[in-house]
Amino acid sequence: MLQCRDRKGIVAAVSEFILNIGGTILAADQHSTDPLNGVFFMRVEFLVPGQDAPDARSLRDSFAPLAGQLGSEWTIREADERLRCGILVSKPGHCLFELLYLWRSGELPVDLAFVLSNCEGHRRLVEMFSVPFHFIPSGREDRQEGAIRELCGETDFLILARYMLTLSPEFLKGYGKDIINIHHGFLPSFKGAHPYKQAYDQGVKIIGATAHFVTEKLDEGPIITQMVESVTHKDTVVSLTRKGKKLEKHALADAVLKYLEHRIIRHGARTIVF
Amino acid sequence: MLQCRDRKGIVAAVSEFILNIGGTILAADQHSTDPLNGVFFMRVEFLVPGQDAPDARSLRDSFAPLAGQLGSEWTIREADERLRCGILVSKPGHCLFELLYLWRSGELPVDLAFVLSNCEGHRRLVEMFSVPFHFIPSGREDRQEGAIRELCGETDFLILARYMLTLSPEFLKGYGKDIINIHHGFLPSFKGAHPYKQAYDQGVKIIGATAHFVTEKLDEGPIITQMVESVTHKDTVVSLTRKGKKLEKHALADAVLKYLEHRIIRHGARTIVF
Amino acid sequence: MLQCRDRKGIVAAVSEFILNIGGTILAADQHSTDPLNGVFFMRVEFLVPGQDAPDARSLRDSFAPLAGQLGSEWTIREADERLRCGILVSKPGHCLFELLYLWRSGELPVDLAFVLSNCEGHRRLVEMFSVPFHFIPSGREDRQEGAIRELCGETDFLILARYMLTLSPEFLKGYGKDIINIHHGFLPSFKGAHPYKQAYDQGVKIIGATAHFVTEKLDEGPIITQMVESVTHKDTVVSLTRKGKKLEKHALADAVLKYLEHRIIRHGARTIVF
Amino acid sequence: MLQCRDRKGIVAAVSEFILNIGGTILAADQHSTDPLNGVFFMRVEFLVPGQDAPDARSLRDSFAPLAGQLGSEWTIREADERLRCGILVSKPGHCLFELLYLWRSGELPVDLAFVLSNCEGHRRLVEMFSVPFHFIPSGREDRQEGAIRELCGETDFLILARYMLTLSPEFLKGYGKDIINIHHGFLPSFKGAHPYKQAYDQGVKIIGATAHFVTEKLDEGPIITQMVESVTHKDTVVSLTRKGKKLEKHALADAVLKYLEHRIIRHGARTIVF
Repeated sequence: MLQCRDRKGIVAAVSEFILNIGGTILAADQHSTDPLNGVFFMRVEFLVPGQDAPDARSLRDSFAPLAGQLGSEWTIREADERLRCGILVSKPGHCLFELLYLWRSGELPVDLAFVLSNCEGHRRLVEMFSVPFHFIPSGREDRQEGAIRELCGETDFLILARYMLTLSPEFLKGYGKDIINIHHGFLPSFKGAHPYKQAYDQGVKIIGATAHFVTEKLDEGPIITQMVESVTHKDTVVSLTRKGKKLEKHALADAVLKYLEHRIIRHGARTIVF
Repeated sequence: MLQCRDRKGIVAAVSEFILNIGGTILAADQHSTDPLNGVFFMRVEFLVPGQDAPDARSLRDSFAPLAGQLGSEWTIREADERLRCGILVSKPGHCLFELLYLWRSGELPVDLAFVLSNCEGHRRLVEMFSVPFHFIPSGREDRQEGAIRELCGETDFLILARYMLTLSPEFLKGYGKDIINIHHGFLPSFKGAHPYKQAYDQGVKIIGATAHFVTEKLDEGPIITQMVESVTHKDTVVSLTRKGKKLEKHALADAVLKYLEHRIIRHGARTIVF
Repeated sequence: MLQCRDRKGIVAAVSEFILNIGGTILAADQHSTDPLNGVFFMRVEFLVPGQDAPDARSLRDSFAPLAGQLGSEWTIREADERLRCGILVSKPGHCLFELLYLWRSGELPVDLAFVLSNCEGHRRLVEMFSVPFHFIPSGREDRQEGAIRELCGETDFLILARYMLTLSPEFLKGYGKDIINIHHGFLPSFKGAHPYKQAYDQGVKIIGATAHFVTEKLDEGPIITQMVESVTHKDTVVSLTRKGKKLEKHALADAVLKYLEHRIIRHGARTIVF
Repeated sequence: MLQCRDRKGIVAAVSEFILNIGGTILAADQHSTDPLNGVFFMRVEFLVPGQDAPDARSLRDSFAPLAGQLGSEWTIREADERLRCGILVSKPGHCLFELLYLWRSGELPVDLAFVLSNCEGHRRLVEMFSVPFHFIPSGREDRQEGAIRELCGETDFLILARYMLTLSPEFLKGYGKDIINIHHGFLPSFKGAHPYKQAYDQGVKIIGATAHFVTEKLDEGPIITQMVESVTHKDTVVSLTRKGKKLEKHALADAVLKYLEHRIIRHGARTIVF
């Protein structure tokens, strides 16, 4: 993935680079906010066949000069390189469960470092999947961010699978990597607590869930995926919650999968999802 | 339609009434906010066959005593009775056009009294459908509510098919009947002006449109219908607007149709849509 | 639930019956294929408060004479009565897993008698939920229907959560109760094997899954729920399958939930889903 | 747009070509059925700024040698070049109306050569839009394909906006260009006549409409767009038809817009829609 100021010849330069190292482009996407002086984004999946194919490290070395000329931010990763992630979860277990199942069945190619919860009740299930479980009794009074921070040190990103405490700006800054959250409402409609109650009171006819990156502004990070479902006057807060759970677990799983496939580029308050 | 405090025996009483006048129930829906002391809503479509079938007026007379006992608000209408409506529209013509077409093809059983616009450009089209067209040069400085009020006098309800001026509380109070508006955003997310610009800036992945009753609080009236569509980072404000127009015209047409079929009951900030 | 030839006075008679036993109607739905001589369907949820409230058995006794007069098929059940069901599943575990999770979290109010599979691999997971697991090595050559039949004897209905063998007409006749199946295609489009391969080859832009009752005609039983998702030319058979799994597990869970809430009435090749 | 056997260096060669003529890539999409020896598809939107920018004709001349080396099928078009199309329509006017409205409001950048119908009733509306209207009394006995063929001679493509007669293989061969049809069913489910009646009889819970290219095999041409909507047991053939009309007009308008933006590549029985 590469991101730089848009100018002529970027695609030509990148595709020639790939050709020169003997590579074949498998898939490519590009997007420009404005061809005249906007920001250009590109994602290329390529294959360098043969035994002597360079590894990611040496590719990065060869690509660095070109990337420098383009003034770009960029990453090159091997397709089978696995990111390492930790899951934080409070009492509602539906998102955790979905992620665990998809992970076990091979649909989420990630190294699952641990599940961390302030709810001991998830231990048995998590351990059945042979995933380390850490109980940390965080609460509004004591968020235990030191202990959490320590555990998260070696991860590449975090998933908040309905973790009910906000993380402090200090935590976010200290961790410094991506955190994906699921909000149980159709942002930006229902920020804050009890979104299904809010939705019920407002009498909306469609509810939603939103997977987004966490930023310092609560419930305002760049949106990755949103899912919706129709509701009627017959729906109660209970049935809205039930329908919402379905939306939440799918929006989150979808966002995580796209993240693992390196399809998401953050750009200010928005995301490019290739 | 009938609405009253929930208690035992309402359905029995109403259905016995219909049986006694020789009627057959064609369709019936009921809803209770809470069976113990909540509010009960009921819609019954029934047919009284035969030449001597009572008309709506005499049915209302016979039903009044029972309705009084139940302490209910209620209406009885003949299925082929046509409501009379006026359409107010500013420059964007897509909702107007959809309504005119559906009306002409018989899908909106309504008496279309007139189209009123502050945009002269719609005249030709409207008159082609043999609908009276009134140009009233309302604007932010002079809303011309007196002239509008006069025209609307004989209507049963109004449709704001993208009418860009808000109606004053005095107008609403004076008119006193239902007004259906289409908001070009997924309420309660994007109140106010330029909702597609707002949606773009927030990077949402789904946009929507909302048909609702007009109340004094701008963009907060009871929601009737919402429609949504997925969008991506590729969408510009222009393409969001194009997609949005489709949603707007369908949400509005759907809301109007349900209104004409007497399927909507207003209840505080919410609607029951049978 | 009640089903009979449509005629005048059914709703009045039923609601008066409920009133006479001191009951309050909580929810009611009715549908008629044709008010003049069609078939009438009704579902009423009612509450008889108080300690001396009659139980289902005595209600059935009191209702029988009226039901006889109406010439109806009917059932009366207590809301907290739990049906007993068995799940049959082959290798794909996603539907099984979804059902187990929803059941454990209290969202599927059913007595889960057992999981029966021709795939031993599901044992560990199923037993973790403390549900009896039976491995029966059924296959195309030997469907082991005798052994299956024996296990199913005490169930009220069966769920085929991606069970890959068809059940014989003899089995269906012998079992005699409802069986809910999930078909991994948008019926009636893609009957038979490999529906995602069929969908790919046909280049469809939307795929679906269908939960339906099992009848002797393969993939033609009455449809309960269908769910769909958009796909593009980028989708491979693999990604279609992944998207399809999501649809399958939700369509099946939705159908089972509606079944448990007694919202489904079979009527020939169609279903009424209240 | 370019289509050829996949091999290394295609993107590099094409993007270098664009760079060499002083062009900037505005948008690009590519797709490969298989990077090893599959078919490669590419769509590039590019801008050559300046007064001396070459026109499409001279670009085609300069690109031809490279295209020849790649063994590709390809087109280069100017963005503001307008295709010329004819619309064929029978009695149902909803798709015609939608197309006319979108065209007049500038959302369908096409030269509308004529509307041809075997239903005289559409004349007034069509002529109001200042579009030539031709009444050709085609029917099952006499399809009048000679007369139709003559009218269509100068068009770049045709739209069948609910034209109820099939076009003969001779007509298709003689015309030789693209024809877009709207089928009022969710193909491949409901081929042939009366798809809503078929859908009703089968008790499906979702209906759809399908825009596709016309081929000799009735209702089997490559699918461009499909749209769906949920239905219930309450829907009658009449209400299914009403909902279906909405789907039809949007699926068709969407397909035509994508066609005009040159986003569609036909590939055997499937389409690539960039």
